[in-house]
Amino acid sequence: MSFLNKIIKSRSEKNGILYAKIVPILGFKPKNISIYEKAFIHSSAKKLDSFGNEVNYERLEFLGDSILGAVISCYLFDEAPHGDEGYLTKMRSKIVSRKNLNQLGEDLNLIDLLISKVSNKHVGKNIHGNLFEALVGAIYLDKGYKFCETFIYSKIIEPHVDLKKLEGKVISYKSLMIEWCQKMHYQFEYQNNEEDGLDGLKYFEVKLFINNENISKAREVSKKKAEEKASRRAYYVLQNHID
Amino acid sequence: MSFLNKIIKSRSEKNGILYAKIVPILGFKPKNISIYEKAFIHSSAKKLDSFGNEVNYERLEFLGDSILGAVISCYLFDEAPHGDEGYLTKMRSKIVSRKNLNQLGEDLNLIDLLISKVSNKHVGKNIHGNLFEALVGAIYLDKGYKFCETFIYSKIIEPHVDLKKLEGKVISYKSLMIEWCQKMHYQFEYQNNEEDGLDGLKYFEVKLFINNENISKAREVSKKKAEEKASRRAYYVLQNHID
Repeated sequence: MSFLNKIIKSRSEKNGILYAKIVPILGFKPKNISIYEKAFIHSSAKKLDSFGNEVNYERLEFLGDSILGAVISCYLFDEAPHGDEGYLTKMRSKIVSRKNLNQLGEDLNLIDLLISKVSNKHVGKNIHGNLFEALVGAIYLDKGYKFCETFIYSKIIEPHVDLKKLEGKVISYKSLMIEWCQKMHYQFEYQNNEEDGLDGLKYFEVKLFINNENISKAREVSKKKAEEKASRRAYYVLQNHID
Repeated sequence: MSFLNKIIKSRSEKNGILYAKIVPILGFKPKNISIYEKAFIHSSAKKLDSFGNEVNYERLEFLGDSILGAVISCYLFDEAPHGDEGYLTKMRSKIVSRKNLNQLGEDLNLIDLLISKVSNKHVGKNIHGNLFEALVGAIYLDKGYKFCETFIYSKIIEPHVDLKKLEGKVISYKSLMIEWCQKMHYQFEYQNNEEDGLDGLKYFEVKLFINNENISKAREVSKKKAEEKASRRAYYVLQNHID
């Protein structure tokens, strides 16, 4: 057997087990499973790569932490159009707090995949969050930024981040637009149209008219979502006007 | 004139000036110039958007800071394959230090675009770096992550980041591969082939053979670059083997 095959073959069985366990956690099929392997190696395992360098999840944790910060920052920038820098920074700290990351890692039971020479009780209380960050780093390397962003949305933002709860304030672009039109004495109208999509689902197309001009439109699976999206698009157009 | 046109028209002239000034700084044509306008508004200008919210560069600075952190982290992760988390964190701090960011903003003369009610002497010594971060945030919003990454590479990493200088150590994947082959008593060979590209340039295709097996290949405009890239690809294949 060739030297390269020897190196690679020894991995395939272990990787097969990891693959089976990680697909349900990720919700997608990894391209390169060996990247994920590193996300679960604790420094106590004293693993080395072919070059004799120590391998553990800490480098991936560094990477994941940065990507997570960028994705959450972009989310907050969009979702909190009125928040100043201080507010955005505070909210980001709340979302990516050690407590929250630990909870996420624990919910996904990432510790089950940990390779360590010490018992799970002795790897530190932040192990769950650290593994979650390392997993984010691995996803970035395997699938790129956009994909990683989708993962973070599905695992953190959609199920857990409730800006209403975090700041005690509802952000609805539709109400923002309505309030603004009323303040400015502009007449507004949401026109909506229901249609059947090619995928068999019903879709709602909503057009927002202000003073009889079509400012924006959006298409979504519910009327409420379509109105919200059209309002948000109108908001962006109008927000670019600075007095 | 319709209400929307009125809102938008007042911007077009000012935006024309900004556009002319910013294209040489960016090195590309912005899609939506009004995003960039906000990157240069100082809080002292007390600007408001259509909704009566205060507008200044600080929100974009928050966003840019995060994107910058993510891009530099990914760069370091790739370029310093031996660096542990502590090393990567230290290097990132050095690269995105206030001093470096201020220098970058000053080199691009971003302060020339600043809209402020106080004199440039009184906007604080970190204004250059803050404007640079805000500009990165604007580029992200206008063109997306990948594009922003390219901008950061061209403005920071390629001209200014010299890991050799930062850590006093050369990272050459070719030497890593050669050292490793020698240590393992593997026979290695770089085969290279020169060819004319469709663009009229000469290209070098390099194949790295270890024990007569082709491990990786790369095509670049110089033999040195192609060898380095092929070595790096081989390194990644082999690094995935963990003992």
